[in-house]
Amino acid sequence: MFESAELGHKIAKTTYDKAVPKLRVALLDAQFDLAQQARFPVIILVGGVDGSGKSETVNLLNEWMDPRHIQVHAMSEHSDEKRRYPPMRRYWRALPPKGKIGVFFGSWYTMPIVQRVQGKINTSHLDRHIDAINHFETLLSDEGALIIKLWFHLSKDAQKQRLEALGKDPQTRWRVTDLDWERYRQYDQFRSTSEHTLRATSSAQAPWMVIEGTDARYRSLTAGNIVLEALRKRLDRPAPIPASAPPLQAAIDHLDLFDKLDMTQRISNKEFASELEKYQGKLNLLTRDKRFARLSVIAVFEGSDAAGKGGAIRRITGALDARNYRIVPVAAPTEEERAQPYLWRFWRHIPRTGRFTIFDRSWYGRVLVERVEKFCSEADWMRAYGEINDFEEQLVGNNAVLVKFWLTISKDEQLRRFKEREQSTFKRFKITPDDWRNREKWDAYQTAVCDMVDRTSISIAPWTVVEANDKNFARIKVLKTLCQRIEAAMKKTRSQ
Amino acid sequence: MFESAELGHKIAKTTYDKAVPKLRVALLDAQFDLAQQARFPVIILVGGVDGSGKSETVNLLNEWMDPRHIQVHAMSEHSDEKRRYPPMRRYWRALPPKGKIGVFFGSWYTMPIVQRVQGKINTSHLDRHIDAINHFETLLSDEGALIIKLWFHLSKDAQKQRLEALGKDPQTRWRVTDLDWERYRQYDQFRSTSEHTLRATSSAQAPWMVIEGTDARYRSLTAGNIVLEALRKRLDRPAPIPASAPPLQAAIDHLDLFDKLDMTQRISNKEFASELEKYQGKLNLLTRDKRFARLSVIAVFEGSDAAGKGGAIRRITGALDARNYRIVPVAAPTEEERAQPYLWRFWRHIPRTGRFTIFDRSWYGRVLVERVEKFCSEADWMRAYGEINDFEEQLVGNNAVLVKFWLTISKDEQLRRFKEREQSTFKRFKITPDDWRNREKWDAYQTAVCDMVDRTSISIAPWTVVEANDKNFARIKVLKTLCQRIEAAMKKTRSQ
Repeated sequence: MFESAELGHKIAKTTYDKAVPKLRVALLDAQFDLAQQARFPVIILVGGVDGSGKSETVNLLNEWMDPRHIQVHAMSEHSDEKRRYPPMRRYWRALPPKGKIGVFFGSWYTMPIVQRVQGKINTSHLDRHIDAINHFETLLSDEGALIIKLWFHLSKDAQKQRLEALGKDPQTRWRVTDLDWERYRQYDQFRSTSEHTLRATSSAQAPWMVIEGTDARYRSLTAGNIVLEALRKRLDRPAPIPASAPPLQAAIDHLDLFDKLDMTQRISNKEFASELEKYQGKLNLLTRDKRFARLSVIAVFEGSDAAGKGGAIRRITGALDARNYRIVPVAAPTEEERAQPYLWRFWRHIPRTGRFTIFDRSWYGRVLVERVEKFCSEADWMRAYGEINDFEEQLVGNNAVLVKFWLTISKDEQLRRFKEREQSTFKRFKITPDDWRNREKWDAYQTAVCDMVDRTSISIAPWTVVEANDKNFARIKVLKTLCQRIEAAMKKTRSQ
Repeated sequence: MFESAELGHKIAKTTYDKAVPKLRVALLDAQFDLAQQARFPVIILVGGVDGSGKSETVNLLNEWMDPRHIQVHAMSEHSDEKRRYPPMRRYWRALPPKGKIGVFFGSWYTMPIVQRVQGKINTSHLDRHIDAINHFETLLSDEGALIIKLWFHLSKDAQKQRLEALGKDPQTRWRVTDLDWERYRQYDQFRSTSEHTLRATSSAQAPWMVIEGTDARYRSLTAGNIVLEALRKRLDRPAPIPASAPPLQAAIDHLDLFDKLDMTQRISNKEFASELEKYQGKLNLLTRDKRFARLSVIAVFEGSDAAGKGGAIRRITGALDARNYRIVPVAAPTEEERAQPYLWRFWRHIPRTGRFTIFDRSWYGRVLVERVEKFCSEADWMRAYGEINDFEEQLVGNNAVLVKFWLTISKDEQLRRFKEREQSTFKRFKITPDDWRNREKWDAYQTAVCDMVDRTSISIAPWTVVEANDKNFARIKVLKTLCQRIEAAMKKTRSQ
């Protein structure tokens, strides 16, 4: 991987001075076209050996380009606050929108490589990180992002010379710390770990570009050229077309999950009052438990129109302290959200540990309304099942208790509720022409829901289908399930 | 994953009898178009629970379709003979060419799932298998293959009922063995392992399709429909277009790996004679060593035209027993080979343990001649680096000693040899107009070679660049390197 980056590459000053003005004009042109087209975002990752000129190059790129369309993120070690979230959250939050460039100085590669070099994780743990990285970068590529990965390299001798030179000069001596020499002693381990990581993450879509860092002019011009050529090439090409997958279809005998539900289950008003008190009390106690600080709760509500999501949610929040929960209502994406990969707008709302978040509709819109209404391509929603599973694994990996409810009512019951809403002064706002249109696509939605449950009900985050023809029954089932799941997670926390 | 396949799906006989003739005609039509277009191969994987009707469905597909264009592979446990090769070899060898259908009854999923259920491997080992499977299927998809993955499922109760029913009937009693009941007892473990595996390998391009296996008519019709729809959809669509990657470029200061070589290194004829005897003797002894039976040697020769590959190879074979080695000369692919994924034609020639194979040119043609001459698309050769690394990891994982030589001569030396060849009666056949044409692209080839070394010189299979202006020097360096690598591998074998 590093063979060509240990040759002593150099560029003369005259060559450099002649090349830079042309390069800058071309970069600005490309940036202008990028912003105009606003078809895709550009993600530039900068990594490499200490002292190889990473930060100088980042500064230069920033200086050469239009600062309104480029944003630099210097990502250091996780702070304590940040560790309360899944590790990838901060990268998600920093992703550039379509038409812009994001430079990541220190990226999702830094932590796994450093921890492996320091012996804090073993090779197989590193390989799990590499898998996660490959999944993430595949997602970004599939969403159209152009990913440019620059690795700045110094040979062991070159690094030593650089540290010695800085140390001899009184003006730069302060820059060389014991930590630098400590890292130098780990050079071989750093080199082999990086090599393994770079090789395993060099895909056809996002290959690593290794740049020798010894000569400032060589490395700057090379980095600039790579960014320019990558931009130019993507700007001047048509959008990719994914291969067609085998189509998903409803069962040929029209039997589905809903046929097996007992939709007649009811709870009387009297029983409801006592059960409600019981489970709201329990939920309240659970959220005040000391162990709750180490968990977060993410409750996802999906369901047919008029199935009673709002009512069920209110019975939960009734048991919670208003300072500790948030309801995230999910509607059509905003313009800002449409300029980002699909999952971006949900990452924004992921709670830190100790918090309770309720999603009123969720990321499952991709495989429900967006699939049925053709708001996204088939390739988009087909890959969403895997992307959602990866996403939820990250949430649960960060101690989230993820509880997913599908509230279902019969077609007749829906009609009854629609009509009731139209006639009630207070509920009229709840029924729109959209609801009637969705109802016409009842079967297509049912098929999408079954595929969703089949492909995303994973053991760490199973779906709970709630029979909601009777509101009392549905509300108690929701509360009870929530309590059970939180209790189970707390027991697991204790036994660890 | 299995929610919708435990509902008791059923199809009435009259419905079935009406549907089958139409389905068969449509399948035959699709098969005809597939053969006519010959654009892509179809790979159907069949897996699932014992007793769920896998073999019956395979038989039926075979019966319904044109047997000239479909081939069924019933892959059982590895035989001892087969274990002398890397595990994936037998699947590579069985891949259908473009225009044909290959049905794999028992596939690359069988072994990892069974071994995990039996507790022979742990979860993280299973996950490594899953990674390898995802890499392999991505390669197949990228090469254009349509992959249809059918999983036949039975609930635990349904499996029990099926075994009991078979056991009660005197005519079928013989079919139920102790092994079947043994496997039934492992049902839960099998279910959770399969679920994990299926979920982690359900990609957008090749999702698993889970079919309930209880009712024969339901499962047959469903399987037939899935195959038909997948075929039809792919046949009627344009070929996919991959996204463009950042372009690889030569270093801006034109300094490359070759500039650092000492091309003046020579060995006198006298010294050559003694060194040759020494290393040929050594190599001969090494290949007669008992430990050699556990290894295989794969020597890859690439190099500039007239760099002396043939001469170096003859100095190796001079030391070997003719019964134990093979030379594989690699030229342009045959028609049969062009109908397969690129690496297929090399898998054919991979030696079993105890054997020595010399590739005179190799799979590196993809990133050399095919890249420079544009015989394949940029997306093809860009992803080849990763595919080749995966391929070589499998070889080395099966105890191959993989030694890769790049023989390099200066441009002047090449000119001298070309002219010499033209003037010599015995060597005239060795020089063709192609050689002169390649020479004009000298710089493009050098860039391709540097990228190749940078991206595929991995620690388990490093490149050895051989300075070959002096034939004596080159031949001894090759022999010496070979001996060192085989010795090192043997020491490792002993210490294990």
